[in-house]
Amino acid sequence: MAEAEPDRRLRLGMVGGGRGAFIGDAHRIAARLDNRYTLVAGALSSDPQVALASGAELGLAPDRIYTGFRAMAQAEATRADGIDVVSVVTPNHLHQPVCQAFLEAGIDVICDKPLATSHEAARALVETAEEFGCLLGVTYTYTGYPMVREARALVEAGELGEIRLVQAEFALGWLATPVEREGGSKQAEWRTDPERAGLSFAVADLGTHCFHLAEFVARQRAERVAADLHTFVSGRLLEDNAHLMLAYDGGARGTIWASMVAAGENVGLRLRVYGTRGHIAWAQERPDELRLAIGGEAARVLVRGGPGLSEAARQATRIVAGLPEGYYEAFANLYRDYADLIAARRALTTPDPLRLWAPTGAEGARGLAFVEAALASHRAGGEWTVIA
Amino acid sequence: MAEAEPDRRLRLGMVGGGRGAFIGDAHRIAARLDNRYTLVAGALSSDPQVALASGAELGLAPDRIYTGFRAMAQAEATRADGIDVVSVVTPNHLHQPVCQAFLEAGIDVICDKPLATSHEAARALVETAEEFGCLLGVTYTYTGYPMVREARALVEAGELGEIRLVQAEFALGWLATPVEREGGSKQAEWRTDPERAGLSFAVADLGTHCFHLAEFVARQRAERVAADLHTFVSGRLLEDNAHLMLAYDGGARGTIWASMVAAGENVGLRLRVYGTRGHIAWAQERPDELRLAIGGEAARVLVRGGPGLSEAARQATRIVAGLPEGYYEAFANLYRDYADLIAARRALTTPDPLRLWAPTGAEGARGLAFVEAALASHRAGGEWTVIA
Amino acid sequence: MAEAEPDRRLRLGMVGGGRGAFIGDAHRIAARLDNRYTLVAGALSSDPQVALASGAELGLAPDRIYTGFRAMAQAEATRADGIDVVSVVTPNHLHQPVCQAFLEAGIDVICDKPLATSHEAARALVETAEEFGCLLGVTYTYTGYPMVREARALVEAGELGEIRLVQAEFALGWLATPVEREGGSKQAEWRTDPERAGLSFAVADLGTHCFHLAEFVARQRAERVAADLHTFVSGRLLEDNAHLMLAYDGGARGTIWASMVAAGENVGLRLRVYGTRGHIAWAQERPDELRLAIGGEAARVLVRGGPGLSEAARQATRIVAGLPEGYYEAFANLYRDYADLIAARRALTTPDPLRLWAPTGAEGARGLAFVEAALASHRAGGEWTVIA
Amino acid sequence: MAEAEPDRRLRLGMVGGGRGAFIGDAHRIAARLDNRYTLVAGALSSDPQVALASGAELGLAPDRIYTGFRAMAQAEATRADGIDVVSVVTPNHLHQPVCQAFLEAGIDVICDKPLATSHEAARALVETAEEFGCLLGVTYTYTGYPMVREARALVEAGELGEIRLVQAEFALGWLATPVEREGGSKQAEWRTDPERAGLSFAVADLGTHCFHLAEFVARQRAERVAADLHTFVSGRLLEDNAHLMLAYDGGARGTIWASMVAAGENVGLRLRVYGTRGHIAWAQERPDELRLAIGGEAARVLVRGGPGLSEAARQATRIVAGLPEGYYEAFANLYRDYADLIAARRALTTPDPLRLWAPTGAEGARGLAFVEAALASHRAGGEWTVIA
Repeated sequence: MAEAEPDRRLRLGMVGGGRGAFIGDAHRIAARLDNRYTLVAGALSSDPQVALASGAELGLAPDRIYTGFRAMAQAEATRADGIDVVSVVTPNHLHQPVCQAFLEAGIDVICDKPLATSHEAARALVETAEEFGCLLGVTYTYTGYPMVREARALVEAGELGEIRLVQAEFALGWLATPVEREGGSKQAEWRTDPERAGLSFAVADLGTHCFHLAEFVARQRAERVAADLHTFVSGRLLEDNAHLMLAYDGGARGTIWASMVAAGENVGLRLRVYGTRGHIAWAQERPDELRLAIGGEAARVLVRGGPGLSEAARQATRIVAGLPEGYYEAFANLYRDYADLIAARRALTTPDPLRLWAPTGAEGARGLAFVEAALASHRAGGEWTVIA
Repeated sequence: MAEAEPDRRLRLGMVGGGRGAFIGDAHRIAARLDNRYTLVAGALSSDPQVALASGAELGLAPDRIYTGFRAMAQAEATRADGIDVVSVVTPNHLHQPVCQAFLEAGIDVICDKPLATSHEAARALVETAEEFGCLLGVTYTYTGYPMVREARALVEAGELGEIRLVQAEFALGWLATPVEREGGSKQAEWRTDPERAGLSFAVADLGTHCFHLAEFVARQRAERVAADLHTFVSGRLLEDNAHLMLAYDGGARGTIWASMVAAGENVGLRLRVYGTRGHIAWAQERPDELRLAIGGEAARVLVRGGPGLSEAARQATRIVAGLPEGYYEAFANLYRDYADLIAARRALTTPDPLRLWAPTGAEGARGLAFVEAALASHRAGGEWTVIA
Repeated sequence: MAEAEPDRRLRLGMVGGGRGAFIGDAHRIAARLDNRYTLVAGALSSDPQVALASGAELGLAPDRIYTGFRAMAQAEATRADGIDVVSVVTPNHLHQPVCQAFLEAGIDVICDKPLATSHEAARALVETAEEFGCLLGVTYTYTGYPMVREARALVEAGELGEIRLVQAEFALGWLATPVEREGGSKQAEWRTDPERAGLSFAVADLGTHCFHLAEFVARQRAERVAADLHTFVSGRLLEDNAHLMLAYDGGARGTIWASMVAAGENVGLRLRVYGTRGHIAWAQERPDELRLAIGGEAARVLVRGGPGLSEAARQATRIVAGLPEGYYEAFANLYRDYADLIAARRALTTPDPLRLWAPTGAEGARGLAFVEAALASHRAGGEWTVIA
Repeated sequence: MAEAEPDRRLRLGMVGGGRGAFIGDAHRIAARLDNRYTLVAGALSSDPQVALASGAELGLAPDRIYTGFRAMAQAEATRADGIDVVSVVTPNHLHQPVCQAFLEAGIDVICDKPLATSHEAARALVETAEEFGCLLGVTYTYTGYPMVREARALVEAGELGEIRLVQAEFALGWLATPVEREGGSKQAEWRTDPERAGLSFAVADLGTHCFHLAEFVARQRAERVAADLHTFVSGRLLEDNAHLMLAYDGGARGTIWASMVAAGENVGLRLRVYGTRGHIAWAQERPDELRLAIGGEAARVLVRGGPGLSEAARQATRIVAGLPEGYYEAFANLYRDYADLIAARRALTTPDPLRLWAPTGAEGARGLAFVEAALASHRAGGEWTVIA
């Protein structure tokens, strides 16, 4: 992967992601890794003091440090050297208004997931993006991993046969105890607070990753869901565990398990997809490996950078097989995709179709449709419920 | 584990398990491994020719080779040197009548699972066994593995805290294609035939193992189930895949995935149990290892024969850590348990309580209650259904 | 694998292996597993009390319980129902005289390794066996594993290309501390005692397994060795760690690491063989898996019972892929091989050539040549030394 | 890990690393990842055309693109905004003169390993660095991995007891065939060419990484080596495989295996260190995991970011346990260390002692002493040879 020549580097702004915000760091490293973006402006916190201090720490020019996202959108849209694109890394409830403000200012947006707190709001954002001709990227980070893309390429090439089963899970042990009431974790606090996180926790935060991963790889759309949501930690207002059964439009069946209370797990995101011929298995904690087991053959361990991989996997790879890439590199792949999409649009050329694998508003909206269907199913006692 | 002195060896009979019957071999090796049984009689096939030839091959005396199980039960019950115990390894639909015949003849029974084709029939067998004072073992083989017993011991000792989540799966790739119509697999034929297998395939054959394993380790009873059963291979009359959500009486939630069409899998039986403190993970294909991950500590890999294991695991172990034991040894642990239970009863002593971990009629009947509830739930569109 | 019909079962005797002797148990289970042998006689300990008690426990008839191996050899050789074959499982220094006595009595012998305490003595035994037309099996147990045999078959089929590198290691943590002086381990005592164990510990006990495994799989003979032997535990009289470099007659190079002081290891026996095209990797603690990595292709995980395996692996397999076999089954494969070799000799037929893969006196003698060369190299400051 | 404020960012130059040079990319990404460096100048190739084009691609100002390293050193040393530090990523034979030129110009140096082509030359560089008060970093990349640092911290804390055994290996399959004669790999060409690579290939390129890793973690100095070097690919002038036995000053023994012809391997760098209490095992391809097995306890799997890790590991970590970091992040840790060392020197403060874990000239020189001793040993038929 070549670095950008400097004049092709995109000027990047950021909303949210000030001091101590985990996800802001990740976005910045991802943007920086391939040298395709330069961070030049930010409204890094809703707390003006933190916003100013964080901006200074990151070396932003004083006139590019903002204390409100609307002011930032306006000011940057009118500067000759204004930002090309903004990363939105605020708590969930602010995603929609922030995205809206920048899209309406004609600025491309890369938004952390979930895109909004309702399917309707997400759909509206997608329409705004279309209306203003802007990119609306949504960072379902995990589909940036090269071997996830390989898995999709294998499915598309028919290597697994017709897809029948899709098993996805995202198990965290992080909140097996009431961390949010012990202080010290901003993350835990806002994510378990319905005011700031929305109506769902495990499904919205983790289940949507599984859902996107499943549809991304299996190439079928989930049509219906039956849900069992549960809150294990008493006093918590949102579900911290979800068991979900799904039916896909191509005839596949599947499950999703999303848990915040899987004590002893770190980032237990795992995907298995079974077709008539065989299956693939992938685990995020060892992302460079993809197990491919075809019935009647010895199972194979494909590795990033290794022989026989798809163009999709190769384009998402920086270094030879055996030298591991990780989370930041996967994240950077999305940023690279978005940069290429913007460049192609500006050059009035057709982007490499593989760039379109990067998740955008459509996938973001679909995630919210899924969340709403899961909540509805659960309220109806686990009834099979259509995903809008 | 000491071998039996010869006069303590039990005289064993077998019904089913003639030439080419996979499970008969496994029972015989299991019985022989610790030298606690001697096979002396058999009605090894419903085909008289096969029964005679199989008996001769196994070196049974001509007068101990039977062509019908009823004749065998009667004859053996009246001989001075008649069998002490019979192994029942016929196709599923015969388990109940065969068990009944031997129990009524006062002969101890070790029956392959499922115990019967209905919960009611299974309950009746349990009552018969009680009435005649006989053992009615049911070989849910997998709970014979030492590290499964260790998992249970850890749960009982409170190492995981209060149990919240139980994830079990049994994924086979064996029948991803219509093997049963291609000839050559007796197994595939009778197991997919409702006449001989009963009303369920994936749930009855595989799901019941998961169910037993889950209850055995997690020490909670499953109260309710919501099921999605599916037949992927067209023309097949029974479900070949099942997704199940469960609610346990101690507050835990769980899932079971049972599949005959998981192409590329061998014997993918896996169990994970999560409590408030941490979890255990076990996979049958590497049975000597048990992962124990407590939140806030490094995960540990416990190994059979290794330090710090429970009495339960130690008693199920023959050889030092690092020299692997496998399926036959697990199976032999059940046979050892049954032999000890019979010996204790005869000696009018109380058996080691750990011997009671071996599954018997009660667990067999519970498996059928589970199957029936799963079928009922599925028919009702996935409704949560009480397990009797 | 079919069981033997009863009249084809071999009458087995045993020397050594009384109460508390680890390896006696393993031999007995291995002999029993496939029902090809019946244990009928034994001189189970050099301590007469233990010999008598152990024999009774194992159910031997009183007149088949001996207190001396010479008396046993004589008596059994003259009985009409005398033993067909004897298992020799004494401490090392007695292997040679015991084998000698039984061979001279015309009785087939299965001897635990090492075959003797010197290459010369081992060669003499081989000659005696030839002279008397007897089998002299030597139980390098680990080449009984099906996937080790698969590895050899792959090498023979040229799958790896020309073999260049052979890396073998056998790392135990057992004696990282002076266990032999703490009491309680008979094994530790005699194995570290030059009087009973011979002139070498790590090389003789562990290194010879590596050496046999290497030659068995790589199909080249080791010609020269350069050795660094070391005793880490003070007061121990024999080396407890060995690093060895080897040169093979087909141009390969290799290393062997044999250690009794690898604290934290269980039975860390591992083999890797690299050819011009690719390599195989096998670890005894997960014996059913064999990694096959061909350059320019994705690595494959072959499993016992799985598709595409050699006849050699298939013949060493009892049960389907995914139901694990372990150490006893590997051991039983050697016993099965020996039984078939004896049966073929008696029937004046040619045995299946795969039966000849079972190690016999020639391999036993070679192991001692290797031990002697390693000791000589070490004494000469690590000089490259020819293996006789 | 905080990013640098912009005015603390170091101005970086680079010698070598033009188009198509693998290692230049890695250095640049490593330098950029934590935002502590800005690349502003370069002499990126010995071919002036390539140097100019590469500089332009990287966005260097025209007056900071050089076609010769001496001109660059001189010019940059005199500019007010001249580079603070230079990365040296040329072929091996140029490391020494390039480093010399920049050190004499008073510019800090970060040099890819090996530092020079002889121990003497390397020692001279170390002296030059001292004389001019400059940093001379040497990027033995792999000790930048957090879990390697954890391994060292465990050794220092005495967790393993007294260290006895150090087993290191670096197995690549890359050059199992004569790639260097097939064209297309600049790397393969110069690395196998004694003129440009020096007198050793496998030992110098791979063995030195093992050697540094071994000494870094085990905290003992290797005193003597016995070597068996071999060239498997005919026509190749330097050894492509090395087996080495080592003796350490603290009483440990060890081996190193370095191979370019281990067909089927990717980047098989593995380290195991055994002490009296237990051992650690680490494999570069899964760098976030460290196995810790203490005798008499269950083995533990430590993970980067996980609980109970040392300060050293924590400081080398950016993101939570379970989100993988990889090779670039390890590399970036060295760059971060060097930046901190430079900052401390400029601030006249004492750096965090953990920063001194980053390898510098002393370790670079030691690597060359090791190479020379290995070559001497081999020439003397494997004689134990003192490492200077």
